[in-house]
Amino acid sequence: MIKIAVMGYGTIGSGVVEVLNTNKESIKKRVGEEIEVKYVLDLRDFPGDPIEKKIVHDYKEIENDPEVRIVVETMGGVEPAYTFVKAMLEAGKSVATSNKALVAAKGAELIAIAKEKNVNFQFEASVGGGIPIIRPLNSCLTADEIEEITGILNGTTNYMMTKMSNEGLEFDDVLKDAQAKGYAEKDPTADIEGYDACRKIAILTSLVCGQQVNFEEIHTEGITKISATDFKYAKSMGKVIKLLATSKKVDGSYCAMVAPYLLSCEHPLYSVNDVFNAVFVHGNVLGDAMFYGSGAGKLPTASAVVADVVDMAKHFGKNIPILWSSKKLELVDYKKTSSAFFVRTTESEAKVKEVFGDVTFVKAEGVTGETGFITKVMTEEEYEEKAAKLEGIKQMIRVA
Amino acid sequence: MIKIAVMGYGTIGSGVVEVLNTNKESIKKRVGEEIEVKYVLDLRDFPGDPIEKKIVHDYKEIENDPEVRIVVETMGGVEPAYTFVKAMLEAGKSVATSNKALVAAKGAELIAIAKEKNVNFQFEASVGGGIPIIRPLNSCLTADEIEEITGILNGTTNYMMTKMSNEGLEFDDVLKDAQAKGYAEKDPTADIEGYDACRKIAILTSLVCGQQVNFEEIHTEGITKISATDFKYAKSMGKVIKLLATSKKVDGSYCAMVAPYLLSCEHPLYSVNDVFNAVFVHGNVLGDAMFYGSGAGKLPTASAVVADVVDMAKHFGKNIPILWSSKKLELVDYKKTSSAFFVRTTESEAKVKEVFGDVTFVKAEGVTGETGFITKVMTEEEYEEKAAKLEGIKQMIRVA
Repeated sequence: MIKIAVMGYGTIGSGVVEVLNTNKESIKKRVGEEIEVKYVLDLRDFPGDPIEKKIVHDYKEIENDPEVRIVVETMGGVEPAYTFVKAMLEAGKSVATSNKALVAAKGAELIAIAKEKNVNFQFEASVGGGIPIIRPLNSCLTADEIEEITGILNGTTNYMMTKMSNEGLEFDDVLKDAQAKGYAEKDPTADIEGYDACRKIAILTSLVCGQQVNFEEIHTEGITKISATDFKYAKSMGKVIKLLATSKKVDGSYCAMVAPYLLSCEHPLYSVNDVFNAVFVHGNVLGDAMFYGSGAGKLPTASAVVADVVDMAKHFGKNIPILWSSKKLELVDYKKTSSAFFVRTTESEAKVKEVFGDVTFVKAEGVTGETGFITKVMTEEEYEEKAAKLEGIKQMIRVA
Repeated sequence: MIKIAVMGYGTIGSGVVEVLNTNKESIKKRVGEEIEVKYVLDLRDFPGDPIEKKIVHDYKEIENDPEVRIVVETMGGVEPAYTFVKAMLEAGKSVATSNKALVAAKGAELIAIAKEKNVNFQFEASVGGGIPIIRPLNSCLTADEIEEITGILNGTTNYMMTKMSNEGLEFDDVLKDAQAKGYAEKDPTADIEGYDACRKIAILTSLVCGQQVNFEEIHTEGITKISATDFKYAKSMGKVIKLLATSKKVDGSYCAMVAPYLLSCEHPLYSVNDVFNAVFVHGNVLGDAMFYGSGAGKLPTASAVVADVVDMAKHFGKNIPILWSSKKLELVDYKKTSSAFFVRTTESEAKVKEVFGDVTFVKAEGVTGETGFITKVMTEEEYEEKAAKLEGIKQMIRVA
């Protein structure tokens, strides 16, 4: 019998308990022993809940119980999760977390502590919910230099973009719908401003380069300025608009960015719809690969956490190395990177040509009084310089 | 310095040497030590090749050299690969193989020997080329009961199906084209009859259920009877035809099958084209997931082999458990499973209705003198019974 503790009995934490119950037998077969939840840490009590008697309010009870060898952290946020997780690792317990904020901010340090203590710190569920991507990066794509990793990493915004694309609705309306369905939170800032995706691409980039990537340094644009009119243009071009989080190898480092992009149907992420997530990877010998699945939701995310628990239970006494040092990676300035740009302006086609030279003009059904066009591929710097010469720019979306 | 040996210096074997050279530095960073190829086993000599002096013709030279701790097997076929691999494992060396024939036939036994000797036997490249799927199944999706695993597992036939779909060509013409491009072998039987995909789904099913699945018992249909006319019907229905290898949980066991299927655009494998492979997985808590990438080719496949080498180098002295016992799984008879069936017959619509009842008739551009229709969902048995009452059936393709 392997005793574990769950810290945080919210959506994911209760999902972990549920998955361990539902698939008790098959998990036992995989681990070789039964896994039992001994404690659930939460500020609240849960009278009537099957875990009622397992509730503790002080994390030290778990820390000081040598019988507990694995701890699950599903509280979210950097503090107090960081203090609790650090204490557990230092007490010689392995920790699995679904907490992207914690991993993005403290990943390198917690990985180092786990190594020193010969235990494991795993975080499969912190990116892409149920999609296996952390472990594949760490233990499958190890023969490759990863030249690009680009993902649809936020289910809420992907649901919204899909709905705007399919139904021609405005941003505010789909946001209300997403909130009504429980996909978006009351305060949806972290999702719609791209902050959530930003932390996730920071984690993926750290794993790919083996160094610390500070999410604060990643250029991040959300989807709040995307309108039904933009989708009319997208439709006329046979494209969709998606919030992408992307990281590309440039001059021995990486350039990371989060922003809405126009995707054509040849793009591997084109048909990733609704709350689904996907991660596209290009390796120098592997070529293209993609991982697709449920990027959020109680059970898919809990499935990834429990998979970490199973892996750690199979690795007692053995630290699985994760290449992510605390040495900071100097990201390449996004202004040095290139793409084509879709632009809408109130200026005339003649003026657009004068400023941008050779462009492709785009019309959208029922849209008048403005000029839509796609530029040639150019750097962000070059685009900004040219755009400054054009009055009345209503929109700019990069073309992937 | 970790010394390894490569057995078989064909396409994949030489790819392994190339990948180890190309990504020497990043691999060294991941493993913590440099990996050096000490021997290459082949019947041939390779004068002028950089590995010329590493060539040995007798596998015992490798077996008896305690310095070699990891051996790569890229010879293909069951014998002599089986004898060689078994000897290496028994000599306490870990083995990575790309050989699906070997793994399908002897996987359970070789996994057991590796466990006994506290080394590892890994075979990521045996299914899906460069796509990580074996390790994700074994170490990521471990919290789930896998209810379905369905893949496009053969790049040659997927290339052919894509070309027939896009260009309206006949089977024989695309086969010649695939052979000219080097995608299909001179004797293409293993690919076009579905034997290759059959071995791969046997391996995946074994990993999913943890027992031995005999590939000989999997109902397997190839693509040789698929014609340009079938694709005309597919087009008129907005569907594509793909060779799928599928395994579904039924009554506590699995029903596995290889056959061409009609897929609509909502199917996750619909847009997997050309030589790409993909594996769709449905877990009881994870929901849907998909893994996509280069299913064949020298470097992608070698990338997967080298990833095994890296993993094994990180696990010296520690057997990574793989749940695949020699206990045989009694597959569910495919005749008990259900689907809708697309059928072409020379009989009249009236006769079709008389036999099959409520069906959906389908027309295809320029096709006359026959009746195309899709049945309701029914078991294979039921279909066969009804089909026996209909003269002149020209084609039957299942609808996924």
